[in-house]
Amino acid sequence: MLTTTEDLKIESTRLKDIKSPADLRELEVGELEIIAQDLRETIIETVSKTGGHLGPSLGVVELTLALHYVFNTPKDKLVWDVGHQVYAHKLLTGRQEQFPTLRQYKGLSGFPKFKESEYDAFETGHSSTSISAALGMTSAKELKGDKDKVVAIIGDGSMTAGLAFEALNQAGHLDKDLIVILNDNEMSISENVGAMSSFLSRQLTSKTVRRLRKHISTRLKELHGVGDRFLNVLKKSEENIKSFFTPAMLFEALKFYYIGPISGHELEDLIPTLENIKDNVDGPVLVHVITQKGKGFKPAEKNPGNYHGLGPFDIKTGIPHSSSGPISYTEVFGNTICDIAANNPDVVAISAAMPAGTGLSNFSREFPERFFDVGIAEQHAVTFAAGLAVEGIQPVVAIYSSFFQRALDQIIHDVCIPNLPVTLAIDRGGVVGDDGPTHHGVFDISFLRFIPNITYMAPKDENELQHMLHTAISLSSPAAIRYPRGAGEDVEMDKELTRIEIGKGELLREGKDILLLPIGNRVYPAMRAADGLEKLGIDAAVINPRFIKPLDNDLICKWAEKTGRVVTVEDNSEHGGFGSLVLELLSASKLFSVKTHLLGHPDHFVEHGPQKTLWKISKLDSPAIINAAMELMKN
Amino acid sequence: MLTTTEDLKIESTRLKDIKSPADLRELEVGELEIIAQDLRETIIETVSKTGGHLGPSLGVVELTLALHYVFNTPKDKLVWDVGHQVYAHKLLTGRQEQFPTLRQYKGLSGFPKFKESEYDAFETGHSSTSISAALGMTSAKELKGDKDKVVAIIGDGSMTAGLAFEALNQAGHLDKDLIVILNDNEMSISENVGAMSSFLSRQLTSKTVRRLRKHISTRLKELHGVGDRFLNVLKKSEENIKSFFTPAMLFEALKFYYIGPISGHELEDLIPTLENIKDNVDGPVLVHVITQKGKGFKPAEKNPGNYHGLGPFDIKTGIPHSSSGPISYTEVFGNTICDIAANNPDVVAISAAMPAGTGLSNFSREFPERFFDVGIAEQHAVTFAAGLAVEGIQPVVAIYSSFFQRALDQIIHDVCIPNLPVTLAIDRGGVVGDDGPTHHGVFDISFLRFIPNITYMAPKDENELQHMLHTAISLSSPAAIRYPRGAGEDVEMDKELTRIEIGKGELLREGKDILLLPIGNRVYPAMRAADGLEKLGIDAAVINPRFIKPLDNDLICKWAEKTGRVVTVEDNSEHGGFGSLVLELLSASKLFSVKTHLLGHPDHFVEHGPQKTLWKISKLDSPAIINAAMELMKN
Repeated sequence: MLTTTEDLKIESTRLKDIKSPADLRELEVGELEIIAQDLRETIIETVSKTGGHLGPSLGVVELTLALHYVFNTPKDKLVWDVGHQVYAHKLLTGRQEQFPTLRQYKGLSGFPKFKESEYDAFETGHSSTSISAALGMTSAKELKGDKDKVVAIIGDGSMTAGLAFEALNQAGHLDKDLIVILNDNEMSISENVGAMSSFLSRQLTSKTVRRLRKHISTRLKELHGVGDRFLNVLKKSEENIKSFFTPAMLFEALKFYYIGPISGHELEDLIPTLENIKDNVDGPVLVHVITQKGKGFKPAEKNPGNYHGLGPFDIKTGIPHSSSGPISYTEVFGNTICDIAANNPDVVAISAAMPAGTGLSNFSREFPERFFDVGIAEQHAVTFAAGLAVEGIQPVVAIYSSFFQRALDQIIHDVCIPNLPVTLAIDRGGVVGDDGPTHHGVFDISFLRFIPNITYMAPKDENELQHMLHTAISLSSPAAIRYPRGAGEDVEMDKELTRIEIGKGELLREGKDILLLPIGNRVYPAMRAADGLEKLGIDAAVINPRFIKPLDNDLICKWAEKTGRVVTVEDNSEHGGFGSLVLELLSASKLFSVKTHLLGHPDHFVEHGPQKTLWKISKLDSPAIINAAMELMKN
Repeated sequence: MLTTTEDLKIESTRLKDIKSPADLRELEVGELEIIAQDLRETIIETVSKTGGHLGPSLGVVELTLALHYVFNTPKDKLVWDVGHQVYAHKLLTGRQEQFPTLRQYKGLSGFPKFKESEYDAFETGHSSTSISAALGMTSAKELKGDKDKVVAIIGDGSMTAGLAFEALNQAGHLDKDLIVILNDNEMSISENVGAMSSFLSRQLTSKTVRRLRKHISTRLKELHGVGDRFLNVLKKSEENIKSFFTPAMLFEALKFYYIGPISGHELEDLIPTLENIKDNVDGPVLVHVITQKGKGFKPAEKNPGNYHGLGPFDIKTGIPHSSSGPISYTEVFGNTICDIAANNPDVVAISAAMPAGTGLSNFSREFPERFFDVGIAEQHAVTFAAGLAVEGIQPVVAIYSSFFQRALDQIIHDVCIPNLPVTLAIDRGGVVGDDGPTHHGVFDISFLRFIPNITYMAPKDENELQHMLHTAISLSSPAAIRYPRGAGEDVEMDKELTRIEIGKGELLREGKDILLLPIGNRVYPAMRAADGLEKLGIDAAVINPRFIKPLDNDLICKWAEKTGRVVTVEDNSEHGGFGSLVLELLSASKLFSVKTHLLGHPDHFVEHGPQKTLWKISKLDSPAIINAAMELMKN
């Protein structure tokens, strides 16, 4: 499947000889092909063991080489958008030895990190920040009289986010030196959406071509003498118009100098183009580079969607190692929304460029006219949903917790102030594991629970999730459900969906000594902790609150008062989250004598690593709950 | 200044005869001119007494008439972006009688509100939501088989926000019926910025024209036989190229059918154009309408910036009634940042289209090369600042509290995870008054205080604000300062700026019975409450915490323990805010016996009205603090 390294001359400079990009610059362009080959082999081999973002990193091997070859990194700055495509970059910048620790606990991050390398010019994880950051960096350099270059490398998918547009708009206005590489693989995580996307791929519709022809004809009539003849030529071929209206037009309109498209896999083309830009072009430049995701690994070339990000796989076949286990929360969400939609024609689903990741693939196939992929546009996803809701449609917006951070204003301003029945399906609530701090969903309780009008739930298991989704959609006001990444509790699924009474928790276990008050995925660990405490002679009550808002004040106060001690547990920051909500309740209810202990993620960003490890180090697992309870019993 | 109504025939149909838009549709187009005149007079007269958004509403009088005349409202939907231009809309849709109560407590809102009228199709306040919402509404209508039209009316300033772009991008892709009216007044709140803006106004630079010429020449060479001749024509005149590249190109690129530009003040043009679109065009359409802000009121036409939004004014001269009073927090911020920047060349300031509103007008004049107005682009403002900070520049981002809701992800992901020294100047923290729920800044403590790495301050008065700004800029990590709208406490300003010790509060008053723990603008009311309590025989201690994060744990715990009772007070939601933070501290410090009472805005959106009224009804003023303390003393 790969050309093996044995085919290449032993005496050539190899990846292992490259200690830093300076070593690259000693080579002839032709010699870089061997390094490219080595990079691909190393990436494939490592990711087959660690899992990771294979497709994006394989797609930019030559581009990464060319950038480090032409630009004087680390003085010149490379700003990688999203940052999941930096494996070659890491291997070329002194991190070969640590590379096998990729995405492992305490190992290399899957994203750029200041603490790892001075070559990591900006930290990322979420999409579409690179042009903003690079524009800031180049503006700073100008203020300091520093002539080093700043290059943002951004994918075509990331271009659909408003943040990228805001940055392009200001960059064109400021007219500062800034190089934007549009890494166009014609496929972001899932199929690209949006008008801009079809513009990039030149798939203009006939309708658009007709409109453009009309527009040109009007304009040309104002240019006396030449219009008719030119128009006749244009009329002959739709292709002529299509080639006239290249992506250049859009970027030139935003005052960027446009170059391209050029192949992102031909070093012989890439390097002279970049050298020319570096030496001769000032002001904002956009270089349109066409790459192929997964380039050089056949299974990934064939099915780029499956190889965007994946777990460990068989290096020969590309087949992922089977990870059979209980059904995931994401799958349950996906199944349930299909069931509900089958009986309710008003239910629609909205994704922000992640239909597969959020479990909406089946929905998108079964109900194509009721499925909306808005692109990487979380803000728009929520306001668009509000518009649907105004007209009586019941939209469900499925987005990861950490990406909902982008839509706070829209949730407050467009959904909750007008009190519209939009359902937010908050996937990845809690730590996500290997992707690390940018992706952990450990803040959503803190940034949503104070918003008036919202009903906010968290299921203890996958069975409760299906009922909560049914409940949320049946409301006539805003609703949110947060559920974790990964497998459910392997419980039996009820056949019938039922509505959960709003604001009612469930007492799972009576007890006289202490109340354990976990939320969502911490309920089962708390139940196990109660068993453990029993063995230690402590009689713990356990409540599954189900609702973060409205909280079951009566049930919680009753048992808090009975036991006099409460331990809250949440897969969320311990600040401003569920625990502090319970403290507010106890204060408002004048239950001043109740002793409390809050368990949540501490006041620093949680590293990457397996979820279990992270729950353990943040003291959110059963042993930690037992310890906290024991400690509180002493008071 | 105005053509008075006396000039018009008595027997004409007048505004007072228009009970709903249906009455308008009975009139000839010519008769609408009289209604337009009446609308202007009513708006000017009312706003001269109530204050409000005069310029935007005067600019769209004819457009509003034309839309209600042509479209079948309320079945056809008008979605007003921002919503501050809806005064004519309100007057035409059954709200003439209540109009004198505009923006008064319990009176008409200055924005569209569902509860006011079925003609208010979507609630707004923040900018750039209209295309998203309208696209949702038209998608819903299509699903329901409903043929009514949806029209979004959006200003050129609002177009700079990423949200608007995200919506345009999806709208072009979905190809659904959607009418977007681009209300181009060539001036949003302040001078417009961004490449798109100069594109709209056709002020292409010579450089851009050169680039476009080169681009056209390349393309034309591919169209055999016609290129050279056409090119020669183009070469003759820069104007030719400019006229070729109209705004049409940009919107056609996004697959909108572009119509315009047309005058927004000529009903004879507007009405047939809109009728034609309504009857004949399907798919997404953009109508480019040129209007003049403040049209019909000479002082506003001359100085549109001063008449965008203002308080009561003299109707004859247009001069605002003098409101001499203590210097505002915003002015102190603006003066202080200029002082700091004069001595520190690395300090830069960033505004999101509101240099005047945030007090940065002087800064922008004194340090033009260090001032960045990014447009209505709060997300980009923050990430751009992060980019500046990476390179050693010290950026201060000044944005209103409620607009920072748009930048939560950027604050977490681009500033706080990489721990970059960006200063967030959070103006309008707390209730803002007449603009109401969309603009109250009553959530920022709740949505920022849990973020790791941030230092978060709130000054008790304007003197402390200047020292806090100095302190924030001197940090090597993220900092935020929240300060309220309006006048300071009229205290003496220190001549020298000093650094406040991080995490240190100040004990303002010793006391043995109870601790009052107010934050920011609630400190002085709490001091007055302590005086009142003294008269009632209660000895209250008062601490000004200064820092929300890091909190002065030692000082607070010491006095909480001494007194056994704590009342917290904040101009922020009582949920997830400063009070709940104090509860977390008491719990973590095992001060279980301390009795607490949290004062903050309750769990519903606060209405519009004078700040003092709102503080009173939310129980945040001195009498309310006294009551809460008395109540707690009983426990």
